Amino acid sequence: MLPLHINVQNKNVLIVGGGSVALRRLQLFLEEDAHVTVVSPAVVDEIKNLAQSCQLIWKKKKIEVSDLREAFIIIAATNDHQINEWVAKQVTPNQLINVASNAEQGNVIVPKSIQKGRLTLSVSTNGASPKLAKQICEQISHQFDESFIKELDIMYEKRQENKKKKGK
Amino acid sequence: MLPLHINVQNKNVLIVGGGSVALRRLQLFLEEDAHVTVVSPAVVDEIKNLAQSCQLIWKKKKIEVSDLREAFIIIAATNDHQINEWVAKQVTPNQLINVASNAEQGNVIVPKSIQKGRLTLSVSTNGASPKLAKQICEQISHQFDESFIKELDIMYEKRQENKKKKGK
Repeated sequence: MLPLHINVQNKNVLIVGGGSVALRRLQLFLEEDAHVTVVSPAVVDEIKNLAQSCQLIWKKKKIEVSDLREAFIIIAATNDHQINEWVAKQVTPNQLINVASNAEQGNVIVPKSIQKGRLTLSVSTNGASPKLAKQICEQISHQFDESFIKELDIMYEKRQENKKKKGK
Repeated sequence: MLPLHINVQNKNVLIVGGGSVALRRLQLFLEEDAHVTVVSPAVVDEIKNLAQSCQLIWKKKKIEVSDLREAFIIIAATNDHQINEWVAKQVTPNQLINVASNAEQGNVIVPKSIQKGRLTLSVSTNGASPKLAKQICEQISHQFDESFIKELDIMYEKRQENKKKKGK
């Protein structure tokens, strides 16, 4: 698994399933201004509310192959492992797919991550303990205080100026 | 930018450019058993050697749109910023593209990362200082010793057993 930081702004994100796992995953993508579509016959109230306030699209139906086609990334997050596995098998070779119930069936793991200003940290235990990964990520993030984060901003500005000077 | 850990095994990775930056990037993907193709009229000796030992394909030519079509991820790493920018503009909406000279032109940042057993850490300063990101990543990784890494393996085995018991 190779850690990559991906700009999902305006990308089509398809969430299969409408429970608490689906909600947790889709919130990550909404924060990054992705276009989120949820396909599920039923959803938790929070997802219903997000659909009503036009923050995502909810298709109240069972998943079909045609739903998957335009997705940049697919999150299979139903509570039925057979459906999740079926979704994983339908994706095209270059599509990104995360299977919440069994990450090894997909090609994407969603690690625990923290953003502090320009600093992004991610931690995965690759299936050993998502809970521990979260704890580690939080502990690490406490090692970087506000002044460090401000310093990073200054370094960024300087680096951009240098790039311009070099005509890059 | 959303940190995701991606399985690039057997994926087509296209590296545009054949210098030291291209080499550094492609080594990451070779370690993950990706299928790497380098498109560049000239390459450094290390890339030449990797091509001769069939670890990657080197197309000795200038980049064309047709080279990009089948790629899962494209790394624009020439020393010509105009070429890199041109490559970034040719990708299809769902393709992954990293522009080494200016990450903001692509949709992927390659963070500094470290793998220790099942633990994967990644750090990005989002353009402030790649050098500092590397230092931070190394410092953090020293906080996790061999016994912790072994413990993660045990936790993983236990979790897998529990999943099986639950019929997941």
